[in-house]
Amino acid sequence: MERPIDVLNNAKGKRVLLRLKKGIEISGVLQAMDLHLNMWLEHAELVDSEGKTKLGTVLVRGDNILYVSPEKSE
Amino acid sequence: MERPIDVLNNAKGKRVLLRLKKGIEISGVLQAMDLHLNMWLEHAELVDSEGKTKLGTVLVRGDNILYVSPEKSE
Amino acid sequence: MERPIDVLNNAKGKRVLLRLKKGIEISGVLQAMDLHLNMWLEHAELVDSEGKTKLGTVLVRGDNILYVSPEKSE
Amino acid sequence: MERPIDVLNNAKGKRVLLRLKKGIEISGVLQAMDLHLNMWLEHAELVDSEGKTKLGTVLVRGDNILYVSPEKSE
Amino acid sequence: MERPIDVLNNAKGKRVLLRLKKGIEISGVLQAMDLHLNMWLEHAELVDSEGKTKLGTVLVRGDNILYVSPEKSE
Amino acid sequence: MERPIDVLNNAKGKRVLLRLKKGIEISGVLQAMDLHLNMWLEHAELVDSEGKTKLGTVLVRGDNILYVSPEKSE
Amino acid sequence: MERPIDVLNNAKGKRVLLRLKKGIEISGVLQAMDLHLNMWLEHAELVDSEGKTKLGTVLVRGDNILYVSPEKSE
Repeated sequence: MERPIDVLNNAKGKRVLLRLKKGIEISGVLQAMDLHLNMWLEHAELVDSEGKTKLGTVLVRGDNILYVSPEKSE
Repeated sequence: MERPIDVLNNAKGKRVLLRLKKGIEISGVLQAMDLHLNMWLEHAELVDSEGKTKLGTVLVRGDNILYVSPEKSE
Repeated sequence: MERPIDVLNNAKGKRVLLRLKKGIEISGVLQAMDLHLNMWLEHAELVDSEGKTKLGTVLVRGDNILYVSPEKSE
Repeated sequence: MERPIDVLNNAKGKRVLLRLKKGIEISGVLQAMDLHLNMWLEHAELVDSEGKTKLGTVLVRGDNILYVSPEKSE
Repeated sequence: MERPIDVLNNAKGKRVLLRLKKGIEISGVLQAMDLHLNMWLEHAELVDSEGKTKLGTVLVRGDNILYVSPEKSE
Repeated sequence: MERPIDVLNNAKGKRVLLRLKKGIEISGVLQAMDLHLNMWLEHAELVDSEGKTKLGTVLVRGDNILYVSPEKSE
Repeated sequence: MERPIDVLNNAKGKRVLLRLKKGIEISGVLQAMDLHLNMWLEHAELVDSEGKTKLGTVLVRGDNILYVSPEKSE
């Protein structure tokens, strides 16, 4: 039986886009995640109304997340 | 005994409409879901006050959901 | 010992009215529910400030619910 | 050892007043309740800024409740 | 090992003051409480911006509470 | 393995400062705390936009807390 | 299998930056953390719209956290 979290197993080592409840977006290379959607990202960047900010390594608390999307390749 | 989540078992591989608490709507082809209503969608699209955005593959965190509806066929 | 949820056992197959925390109302024929008050409704309709919308089949996430009421017969 | 919920055991079959977090009040005859303060009321009435509305039979989700009070007899 | 809740064991049968998250205050004689801080009060009174209201017997849902304080004797 | 809560074990019997989510601050002598950060304080004082208020003995519900800080000695 | 929290194991004894949901930032030397992201920091500083404040030793309740980032070395 497939679980929703499985969509992220294929995304490990690839860039994912997190849209947070607060309207902020964070993108980064997915290193690890758990069932609460806590996520460890590398080379992360934050995008909000003030523009782009480099975050580097970051652990995002899962309860802030609206959705996660592996970046489209094409 | 039937459970509410069973309504989504028949919806797998079909397009569902998610209405989120924030007033945003996301539609997509249901790939997998769990009891928290975390949902993995393919060919997803987001509709908010700014219009339609293609999301592609997406994992929506269940606690954002107001309701889920399989798209009406007719 | 009677539980609050038992009031809905008699309501299965009948129309119930959900008042949500956000002020929205959804009515529909109750198909299944669980202890979180997740509810599967058929022939559902949403009523908000913009009027009535047919939803058809719908799964409402229980944490949105203020109260549920079986529709009065008389 | 007495528990807070015990105050409602004596209130079964009697009218109770629910004050909800949103400022709405619901009164009704207590039929059943559980530890989450989910409550099944009969002959329920809602009082908000727009006046009184008859609800009949109703199941109130406990997480909306600010406090519950058995109606004063005198 | 002392637990925070123990401070209320000595307060049983005495008047306590509840400050709620919404800015409302409720005082009453503590009859019973549990680990969620659900509280059964007797001779309760509510104080909000509109003044004082007698509530009589009341069960306050613990998740509304900011803090509880046994009334100062002197 | 050290746990975050251990920082408070050394603070027992000393004054701690609680900053709450609502912007209010409460300081008091730490008597007991648990893993939810429920805290029993003695000789407590509340500081908000209206000034300082003596609270005496108080039990603060942990879910209101932003952070706790043992008062700096120097 | 790597877990998101593991990113913080390497950060112990180093300065981390916490961005909180309320827009406040706290930085400090990470002493201990747990799975809820409760964090014990030393030499902590708070940055909000009013500027920088020294906090010294602090325990931040994990549910306030948006993300945590080990400070970039270069």
